[in-house]
Amino acid sequence: MVSVGIMGGGQLGLMMIMEGRRLPFKFFVMDDSDSPACMIADKCFSPSNYKEFVDSSDVVTFEFEHVSEEALIYAHDERKLYPSLDAVELKRERYKEKEYYRNHGLPTPRFTVVRGGDEALRTLKDEFNNYGVIKRSKGGYDGKGQYFVRGDPAVASEVKGMDCYFVVEEFVDFDFEASVIGVRSIRGEFSAYPPTFNLNLKGILVYNYGPYGDPAMQEIVRKLADSLNYVGAMGVEFFVKGSKVMINEFAPRVHNTGHYTLDGALFSQFDQHVNVITGSSPLSTEVTTPSGMLNLLGVEKIPQISEGKVYWYNKKEARKRRKMGHINVVGKDLAEVKGKIDNLMKQIYIKGLDL
Amino acid sequence: MVSVGIMGGGQLGLMMIMEGRRLPFKFFVMDDSDSPACMIADKCFSPSNYKEFVDSSDVVTFEFEHVSEEALIYAHDERKLYPSLDAVELKRERYKEKEYYRNHGLPTPRFTVVRGGDEALRTLKDEFNNYGVIKRSKGGYDGKGQYFVRGDPAVASEVKGMDCYFVVEEFVDFDFEASVIGVRSIRGEFSAYPPTFNLNLKGILVYNYGPYGDPAMQEIVRKLADSLNYVGAMGVEFFVKGSKVMINEFAPRVHNTGHYTLDGALFSQFDQHVNVITGSSPLSTEVTTPSGMLNLLGVEKIPQISEGKVYWYNKKEARKRRKMGHINVVGKDLAEVKGKIDNLMKQIYIKGLDL
Repeated sequence: MVSVGIMGGGQLGLMMIMEGRRLPFKFFVMDDSDSPACMIADKCFSPSNYKEFVDSSDVVTFEFEHVSEEALIYAHDERKLYPSLDAVELKRERYKEKEYYRNHGLPTPRFTVVRGGDEALRTLKDEFNNYGVIKRSKGGYDGKGQYFVRGDPAVASEVKGMDCYFVVEEFVDFDFEASVIGVRSIRGEFSAYPPTFNLNLKGILVYNYGPYGDPAMQEIVRKLADSLNYVGAMGVEFFVKGSKVMINEFAPRVHNTGHYTLDGALFSQFDQHVNVITGSSPLSTEVTTPSGMLNLLGVEKIPQISEGKVYWYNKKEARKRRKMGHINVVGKDLAEVKGKIDNLMKQIYIKGLDL
Repeated sequence: MVSVGIMGGGQLGLMMIMEGRRLPFKFFVMDDSDSPACMIADKCFSPSNYKEFVDSSDVVTFEFEHVSEEALIYAHDERKLYPSLDAVELKRERYKEKEYYRNHGLPTPRFTVVRGGDEALRTLKDEFNNYGVIKRSKGGYDGKGQYFVRGDPAVASEVKGMDCYFVVEEFVDFDFEASVIGVRSIRGEFSAYPPTFNLNLKGILVYNYGPYGDPAMQEIVRKLADSLNYVGAMGVEFFVKGSKVMINEFAPRVHNTGHYTLDGALFSQFDQHVNVITGSSPLSTEVTTPSGMLNLLGVEKIPQISEGKVYWYNKKEARKRRKMGHINVVGKDLAEVKGKIDNLMKQIYIKGLDL
């Protein structure tokens, strides 16, 4: 039986195991024993025990790219890591990711890389007329470390005097945000789900639904995955403006905007990921029904609702912005899906969203 | 966190746990530690330890009705057993099940109950003109203990001299077999999936697909479930002849003909079962796409196919007729689903089905 080691015990690892159980895999998780995925893993390893974790696993993956560097490197050195370190490295420094897009002819918003907060503010003024985004190159997740300036640079004053790399980027007045989940095998076979419409607020995904948007995005994902010789599932987020699409960023892992595949497709992104990292070819990425997903952000109790299917991650405590679970919905068309999401938004966030 | 105890560690228990993981349940299984469901349970109990198993569980159910009687009775006495002992009792003696249908105005083939094999053969001749089925009242599963006589009673000569109850039943020259999965809550709420077309050979299910057949079958299932004050998912098998439907038998549990719900509906039969026995209301039983299922009977290795989704039960050894896994397929219509099943039949059973 093949043993799959997952670094990180959050909801993405949890769903990987849930979905992986239809085939005889062993799942090992590297995280605290009370993390969601550890609770249903075949065995849980403390992060300090990373060598034993990697040695016990036939292949190693991660559900979150911000895990211990030494564990990643050890798994890489043992030739067990999928996707590869290269993909993770791009996420360690935002400017490398942006330059990667530019160097590979992948569409992305116009940007300049600078060193130092003062230089970032100057560049924002000189090159972008104080209308753009300053992003810290290192760190940041779910919108952290990003400053959106629409005329008044005071909102980014925090960066003054900071001595680190920044990406200063044009502000894209997009029509909507979208994303595509792609999956690529060890032999380079590629497949992608159709794009979805995503609603992000304050840098965090609230809901998404699909299929929606230009299938051309799938080809961009293929190009990115091929260029990286990527193995696994990946999520790529786009800005869409008219007929133009631009990559905002990618995640070298299963992605929140792909949770709908648990119920909107025969094979989910989690299923795909586990399959390709263990040597299989991508499975069908056709969707079987229009569908959507709503995140349960900071929600304290399992909602009692009948309009969708609740996935509850069983985290110890609810915190503002924390993803506590999600709800998947299906419908005969996108209007029905959207209607269900709208109803759920009212039922779940009675007092409005607090982000 | 609610603890669900499952008696029996086969594939039905395995899928109950797989599906139950989207909500924070603990799953305890009573069976050998190397049984499929035990391997992914939170804790596994030996059948001799049934008291500790029941005491540890908030609710107790079974994935197979032929489990230890004393364990069932203990769980019943502790008021934890769903569905109830009454439903199981009907499956202990086939004649009780048949009489139950007759007494409750539920359509079923004409039958006579007799004691002794010789009397069974005499009844078959006198009342059914040697054209009918002799079924041992006790035992029997997947077609065992049943003798189909079409003119020549010699095929049932095994029963001669046997001193036990038999059901002698008319032979129904049905157009097709069908089934419905129903689900009923503690408060009596009921819902049912649409019927499916089932192909049984030698008393064992080979494949099924749907939705197919008269929705009136759903109402018969409701009547049966209500009369039993049933709690949980149940599978009811029918003979269909023209516009007439007759119950062949029912199973007081999730059912092989409901495996398609894992991929053809938002909520699966397993999901429903776990939810209602823990106090929730039935979830939507709408299907999201035409779909079907093919059993992997006696198949030794995980099939490498791309036309469907393989569920492999990870049983220690393959035996003739043994259900080693199944494949779910979906399609835009039943013709596409049926086409995929036909293709899979050729790929999986290259030398034909050996039952």
